[in-house]
Amino acid sequence: MKTIIEKYGHRRVTVVEGGITRHRSIFNGLKVFAEKEFSSHLLQKPEVVIIHDAVRPFVEEDIVSKVVMAAKEHGAAGAIRPLVSTVIASAADGCLDHSLERARYRASEMPQAFLFDIIYEAYQQCTDYDLDYGTECLHLALKYCKTNAKLVEGTTDLWKVTYKRDLYAAESIIKDNLSQRVCVITKGKESLAQVGFLLPESLKNQIKVEAISVSPSKNDSHLQNIISGQCYNFVCVNDKRCAIQEIQELVDMLEKSNTPLLYPVVLISVHLDISENNSFSIGMEDITTIKKFARETKKKNILVYGLLIQYKDPLLLQETVNSAAALIMALIKDRNPELIGQLLVA
Amino acid sequence: MKTIIEKYGHRRVTVVEGGITRHRSIFNGLKVFAEKEFSSHLLQKPEVVIIHDAVRPFVEEDIVSKVVMAAKEHGAAGAIRPLVSTVIASAADGCLDHSLERARYRASEMPQAFLFDIIYEAYQQCTDYDLDYGTECLHLALKYCKTNAKLVEGTTDLWKVTYKRDLYAAESIIKDNLSQRVCVITKGKESLAQVGFLLPESLKNQIKVEAISVSPSKNDSHLQNIISGQCYNFVCVNDKRCAIQEIQELVDMLEKSNTPLLYPVVLISVHLDISENNSFSIGMEDITTIKKFARETKKKNILVYGLLIQYKDPLLLQETVNSAAALIMALIKDRNPELIGQLLVA
Ligand SMILES: [Mg+2]
Ligand SMILES: [Mg+2]
Repeated sequence: MKTIIEKYGHRRVTVVEGGITRHRSIFNGLKVFAEKEFSSHLLQKPEVVIIHDAVRPFVEEDIVSKVVMAAKEHGAAGAIRPLVSTVIASAADGCLDHSLERARYRASEMPQAFLFDIIYEAYQQCTDYDLDYGTECLHLALKYCKTNAKLVEGTTDLWKVTYKRDLYAAESIIKDNLSQRVCVITKGKESLAQVGFLLPESLKNQIKVEAISVSPSKNDSHLQNIISGQCYNFVCVNDKRCAIQEIQELVDMLEKSNTPLLYPVVLISVHLDISENNSFSIGMEDITTIKKFARETKKKNILVYGLLIQYKDPLLLQETVNSAAALIMALIKDRNPELIGQLLVA
Repeated sequence: MKTIIEKYGHRRVTVVEGGITRHRSIFNGLKVFAEKEFSSHLLQKPEVVIIHDAVRPFVEEDIVSKVVMAAKEHGAAGAIRPLVSTVIASAADGCLDHSLERARYRASEMPQAFLFDIIYEAYQQCTDYDLDYGTECLHLALKYCKTNAKLVEGTTDLWKVTYKRDLYAAESIIKDNLSQRVCVITKGKESLAQVGFLLPESLKNQIKVEAISVSPSKNDSHLQNIISGQCYNFVCVNDKRCAIQEIQELVDMLEKSNTPLLYPVVLISVHLDISENNSFSIGMEDITTIKKFARETKKKNILVYGLLIQYKDPLLLQETVNSAAALIMALIKDRNPELIGQLLVA
């Protein structure tokens, strides 16, 4: 935990030791504000505290602000969701006793927010039994402070990452979020102009595209803006077989921007082959060079792939470009670290 | 629906028109057994009926048989799961009224099973309100037939594929299930013996491997057995650059087996390059040939990929083989249809 805070440079975070149950951990967190003396004014007693579960990583700012506003008015507030299954009570013999009318009930989710004085009071008053077997903070506020929490309808994003399948889902959602934008950089050479135009057009059907037709250089403020705007996908179109130098410049810019710190960046080097030689071939040295380079940049959380577009028959160019766009989308969506340094052919 | 039944050759399935609510659909299904005259004895009135949701595709045989046995004894039975969130009741003003003690309640899931006479009786007696607004079959059996269903603890597999994230999770689970076994086929040439041994060894750390060191031919009963045993991953090691013919034989066997009907089969053609020529290169004709071939076999739901292992320095062979194994695992796990026909290099 402390390593994570350091790595990402968080300044307003204090880690508090957890307890053996959920309620004891939350109580430990609250005590920090009430009992200890802190030099930093950032840890003074707050008006409202938010309680959230780390296993609900996709929480939106909107619901957080809604529960905070509701807590200011009502003393307590929490996100709710419709029940997905009927809730039933079982008898002692393991048979159905009765089922609840689904429409009357809701699932209590997180985040929840409280006036600090209310939730701290509730935790101070509650019993060891509450602390050891309870899980619901809204219940404590009701029981010990007579505070009926305001219930705020939340979105499906609040789901708990609980099972292995949820990890799969979380990974796919993150990859999906990272695959919304791509920046296509074309070197301003005439031979590339056609592909530099057709490729972004073909990609636009599937992803938001920002096309730049200059060379990446340290003075390019447009590219610099895109990078700081947290774009996680870059396509460099060039006519060299092995454009390590061009890509290196982009890698340097990305590294400086801290973008790859949070999520892996995909960087696809597209080589346009305009030789009219039919017996064209890929030399093993080129392949080895790209692989070595990709292995190095992977350490910086930048995933480099190579893609070759053959420009033989002008009539087939559109088809080849579409096939290149499909490969680019597959590489962006998968972000597969095992395939780095490979040279695909469109 | 009828297309699916035809495609997969199901013979004991009758499709019944759904109703405008869940309960009306189930009632329609039950009526088929009770009211109509059927020539086929397969549709005679059953002792027990099972009700299940198509959105719970990962149901295991075990729980189905448990609810059936329990229904025979108790008249009704259903799968249950622990509650994942606290269930709360809200007051008219949108504030918390009370929360339920989580341990006393369960979520009612599917499958459920009933003695036919009980559930049919319940549906015949129930009101239009039940049919339009109810969802819980166990509740109907209790209310109209005084049958307290036996509750059977189910596994996490019973989850409902509800949101987009669940589709992601379902896809990953299916791909995971398909990535448990690989068959490595090596042609019996001496030059391949070392890789034919090292590659399965390296793969064994990540997947169950069945290694065969003969040529795939129509008379190979061992390979035939593996194919009929629903193996979805094949690696063919050969020393030809473009071993289309060898792969074609395997494709034919797979096609005859019906294996690719249900899920895509991954077929990786591994080419071992033992030329001592340092200026080795990949000809574009080979690449074009593999791509064309892969596009054809994709129509048969067989995904063909190429993988080149360079055998230059014997000291580096183990490392190269490990890298090949990592690429093979990535291709098997992803099953990416966009990358078919590509030639990767280990
Ligand atoms: Mg979200
Ligand atoms: Mg299962």
